Amino acid sequence: MIGIKGIASYVPVAGVDNYAQGAKFDKDEEFILGKIGSAFLPRKDDGQETSDLCVEAANALFANNPGLKRESVDVLIVVTQNGDEEGLPHTAAIVQDKLGLPTTVAAFDISLGCSGYVYGIYAIKGFMEAAGLKNGLLITADPYSKIVDPEDRNTTMLFGDAATATWMGEDAPWHLGKAKFGTDGSGAPHLKVSDGVFFMNGRQVFNFALIKVPAHLHELLADSDLQASDIDAFCIHQGSAAIVDAVARRFEGEPEKFIKDMVETGNTVSSSIPLLLEKHVLDSDWKRVALSGFGVGLSWGSAIIYRP
Amino acid sequence: MIGIKGIASYVPVAGVDNYAQGAKFDKDEEFILGKIGSAFLPRKDDGQETSDLCVEAANALFANNPGLKRESVDVLIVVTQNGDEEGLPHTAAIVQDKLGLPTTVAAFDISLGCSGYVYGIYAIKGFMEAAGLKNGLLITADPYSKIVDPEDRNTTMLFGDAATATWMGEDAPWHLGKAKFGTDGSGAPHLKVSDGVFFMNGRQVFNFALIKVPAHLHELLADSDLQASDIDAFCIHQGSAAIVDAVARRFEGEPEKFIKDMVETGNTVSSSIPLLLEKHVLDSDWKRVALSGFGVGLSWGSAIIYRP
Repeated sequence: MIGIKGIASYVPVAGVDNYAQGAKFDKDEEFILGKIGSAFLPRKDDGQETSDLCVEAANALFANNPGLKRESVDVLIVVTQNGDEEGLPHTAAIVQDKLGLPTTVAAFDISLGCSGYVYGIYAIKGFMEAAGLKNGLLITADPYSKIVDPEDRNTTMLFGDAATATWMGEDAPWHLGKAKFGTDGSGAPHLKVSDGVFFMNGRQVFNFALIKVPAHLHELLADSDLQASDIDAFCIHQGSAAIVDAVARRFEGEPEKFIKDMVETGNTVSSSIPLLLEKHVLDSDWKRVALSGFGVGLSWGSAIIYRP
Repeated sequence: MIGIKGIASYVPVAGVDNYAQGAKFDKDEEFILGKIGSAFLPRKDDGQETSDLCVEAANALFANNPGLKRESVDVLIVVTQNGDEEGLPHTAAIVQDKLGLPTTVAAFDISLGCSGYVYGIYAIKGFMEAAGLKNGLLITADPYSKIVDPEDRNTTMLFGDAATATWMGEDAPWHLGKAKFGTDGSGAPHLKVSDGVFFMNGRQVFNFALIKVPAHLHELLADSDLQASDIDAFCIHQGSAAIVDAVARRFEGEPEKFIKDMVETGNTVSSSIPLLLEKHVLDSDWKRVALSGFGVGLSWGSAIIYRP
């Protein structure tokens, strides 16, 4: 059974001091840390393309996992909505070349935002099992610095650039359990790009997440015959400190199990959940962890991963 | 086992007389029919978005298959590189809303070009099996009229707009057999969009396909312990009449088994193979059909589908 074998990441060293940025918009440190959740927002160099972030994360994965050889990779999926080119070609093809992966690799992009990692792990696992493939790379890289207007107070204090790479394969320490998904395209206008600039209706998105995510996690637990007490940690998309705190409070179960770690990264879109898994989960003694991603689409997905 | 239960399509009635267009570039009817392969190129209305083409194809699928209910659809994948919006949101979310599908649907886009259908059937089957889903819609819609320059003689005589919808589910008459995939991002510059306009190096792409596709099909047959004589028909991407003919000739096996049907459609990108399947394969008495898609990326994929 295909599962999660390892995760690595790339977070640019350069970035924006979010306290200084907040001051520009008359936001104090309490707001920046308590509501936004991020003192620092990593930013890629102007010269770095999305594929370059992917390559950095994948190279970190290769460095950390000597058992993973470039020549044994047979599938590469990039989750992004801000790829290198204007629609085509797909970023995964460019990453195949830059990483020096064999030309026998199956490569494509999945277009999803903050829910993308939860969908992505099932998409790559399923594709591998359906096509008989053995070693997959699931890469997330959605640099919102390409589209966020630095003068837009609703978005410029939120997003950070990052990329992650997840090794999927056999004999994995973490397996995928049940998952549930959802889509409501009637909310598409709340998060979109027009004329190259990102727009977010923050209030609508906050309310959507607050109503949807706790209920969705409860349904997933019920479908899995599990209680909140059976879950060691909840790793939900780090949209902002406010939304993570609010979802945790609405989740009557055990709110202290909701991991919050975005002070140095910001909202990294589809990279937020794998960043949590890399840092807090993969090397832990935990047995069972719940994930939930939510955002642009509107789209959401929740899943349970576990040690077999 | 998840397989192909039905296919429907939408081909715009309006379009371009390709003989008249050819005359503009001093190309005679023999060239248009013999090399390009298409007397007519369907074109969407300016007011139609990519999601509208998806909706037309999906509604045709619902109309043809009373057993497929909107409320029972639990996954929707759109294969496109020319979606509605600028990167985000994904077109699948918009299609979910326009089709009135339940909000419990898992929806995302896959970014691939002419190889997209072969990847797409394994991606949706795998995702459904990994996530325990029952009824999927795989939609292809990549209207190149959005990006093709009508003054570019290398591309404007080739592409037609179309969309297809494939119902994937249990108890299907056609199952997916072995598949093989490939990617060579070093060839990405041969097919790309810059400043909103599509560029193709036709000679490079033709040579790539002529070298890659026959060999790839041979490898797939060998991996499947099959001979060309075991295959009832070959449905390869209808890039142009010249490439279909050339691949068929290079395939020493049985070139007459290569279906060519693009006179009224042109090169419809990821819709070309499902258009062939809908028209020639699904209701046939054939038992085993080989597919091969190839193009932007560069990317290619070959597969065998069969009646169980």
